Amino acid sequence: MSNEHRPDPIRTVAVVGCGTVGASWTALFLAHGLDVRATDPSPAAEERLRRFIDRARPQLAALGCSGEGALHFATGLADALAGADFVQENAPENEDLKRRLLAEIDGLVPPGVIVAGSTSSLLRSRLVADCRHPKRHISAHPFNPPHLVPLVEIVGEDDDVVARAANFYRGLGRRPVVLAKEMAGHIANRLSSALWREAVYLVEQGVASVADIDAAMTHGPGMRWAIMGPHMTYHLGGGEGGIEHYLSHLGPSQARRWASLGTPVFDDATKRALVDGVRDEAAGRSVAELEAERDRALVGMLRLLGRADPSQAPPHE
Amino acid sequence: MSNEHRPDPIRTVAVVGCGTVGASWTALFLAHGLDVRATDPSPAAEERLRRFIDRARPQLAALGCSGEGALHFATGLADALAGADFVQENAPENEDLKRRLLAEIDGLVPPGVIVAGSTSSLLRSRLVADCRHPKRHISAHPFNPPHLVPLVEIVGEDDDVVARAANFYRGLGRRPVVLAKEMAGHIANRLSSALWREAVYLVEQGVASVADIDAAMTHGPGMRWAIMGPHMTYHLGGGEGGIEHYLSHLGPSQARRWASLGTPVFDDATKRALVDGVRDEAAGRSVAELEAERDRALVGMLRLLGRADPSQAPPHE
Repeated sequence: MSNEHRPDPIRTVAVVGCGTVGASWTALFLAHGLDVRATDPSPAAEERLRRFIDRARPQLAALGCSGEGALHFATGLADALAGADFVQENAPENEDLKRRLLAEIDGLVPPGVIVAGSTSSLLRSRLVADCRHPKRHISAHPFNPPHLVPLVEIVGEDDDVVARAANFYRGLGRRPVVLAKEMAGHIANRLSSALWREAVYLVEQGVASVADIDAAMTHGPGMRWAIMGPHMTYHLGGGEGGIEHYLSHLGPSQARRWASLGTPVFDDATKRALVDGVRDEAAGRSVAELEAERDRALVGMLRLLGRADPSQAPPHE
Repeated sequence: MSNEHRPDPIRTVAVVGCGTVGASWTALFLAHGLDVRATDPSPAAEERLRRFIDRARPQLAALGCSGEGALHFATGLADALAGADFVQENAPENEDLKRRLLAEIDGLVPPGVIVAGSTSSLLRSRLVADCRHPKRHISAHPFNPPHLVPLVEIVGEDDDVVARAANFYRGLGRRPVVLAKEMAGHIANRLSSALWREAVYLVEQGVASVADIDAAMTHGPGMRWAIMGPHMTYHLGGGEGGIEHYLSHLGPSQARRWASLGTPVFDDATKRALVDGVRDEAAGRSVAELEAERDRALVGMLRLLGRADPSQAPPHE
């Protein structure tokens, strides 16, 4: 992009929908010094949002993000969108609802403003079907919790819009990954889902307890997966000859392994085994306590892996 | 176990096969003050083994393991097994070879000594078919590199043998996971394989580059998987209602996602895309350099997650 066409920097973000994802985005934007105009139809939303931000602030400060953008909790959608330079939509995962909402947003904000939707499993092409300016709409799917986990999966149809959005997220210390084509679940949720299918199969088959299967992951391959992804892992699995050696020598046995993987069903017995097993594993810890443990470890891991952003200036396009 | 039946503590381990896995086991045993009698038919094995140990020593010291067991590189199998209190077998993943080798070991060591095989994909029940004392044989599968990654998956048929082996590995700072029944690939390799299948599918479908798919993992779900396993992850995905809420509200959509996961084949185009993509991602780094990067990060992660063993006393049964 040449300087003469450079859009104005993003200073104000509208956050539409303030559940867990929207609240986490809001905390991240504020900590990077951006102003946020937030809206959510739930009566309890503002209080929940402010509580979330208070919890997230010290985590973000530990990562070097101590900005103090201003939060305005808007009286409704039009108020939230007024003057926004970027829109982050996080409504519930319901195609009709999101489709109507995006069309409404599309009619309210100037065509140059990017509208990013956090959908995990719906197709962008269907969600923007009623928009007059579909090209400025992208899917920008974060991973829970977005203020800590860097990944943002981006799907769009206009290369310039996608590049501007990726640049914006990069400025917030995120790791944008641009998909060449849309697919339900993008990348990360599909990988998670594939993994869980086999984990549920092992429960169904009685191979090990829920807690032991989880431990096999956290104390085994899971320790490597923050460091290198599946393809690179098998590259190292090939020894000095790398992935080429792996594919020619172990490709056939991997293909046989794939054929042996399970296709479990959520029948009553399996659901019961999962619920009971997770209860044993949680050992009395509430979901909130488990989340707090996870977030503490994530902050440590971000620092360890050099993914904190100590010198982070306010982001610009 | 009552005191009167307590077996002698393990002081000397025979390591049979000194490839990557055997060398890594050896480094771990030595750093915990155990003596090792190692053997491998390859002419270069001893030099490779000593080089590996030299590289691993500072990593283990950083984790609080600075023991100095004595290494004897044996002249052959009988010499390696003489006086061993525990046998760790790491021969190549070949059923006939391992079956013959285990029978030979079985004939050479007293029946009270546990023989642990590091197989990743073969079934213990078939490997011990020619042994006179099959009950003291277990599969004890570590994850690369075993001196850093804590997981050891154990399969056996005698509860006392399994408990003694698990206790031995626990004393070495490992995390034993005992399988209730044998299954090719145990737990961790099946989970890895399930994940990679979908990752290869996404390459095959042209959804994103190899490097971007790996990045989606390392900067997304992979950051959480050293902290919590797949089941616990979906427990948190259910919000305050946990896994029970998740299964009743999102179970059906998860089942639909499973049905949409891919079954790629290693045809020439896909193999080429994987090899080229990994080459781009490696960006000139050799497998050895990538391993060194991984190991540095693993040491940091073990310390971060409290999985180092600073106060580790020599292990006893």
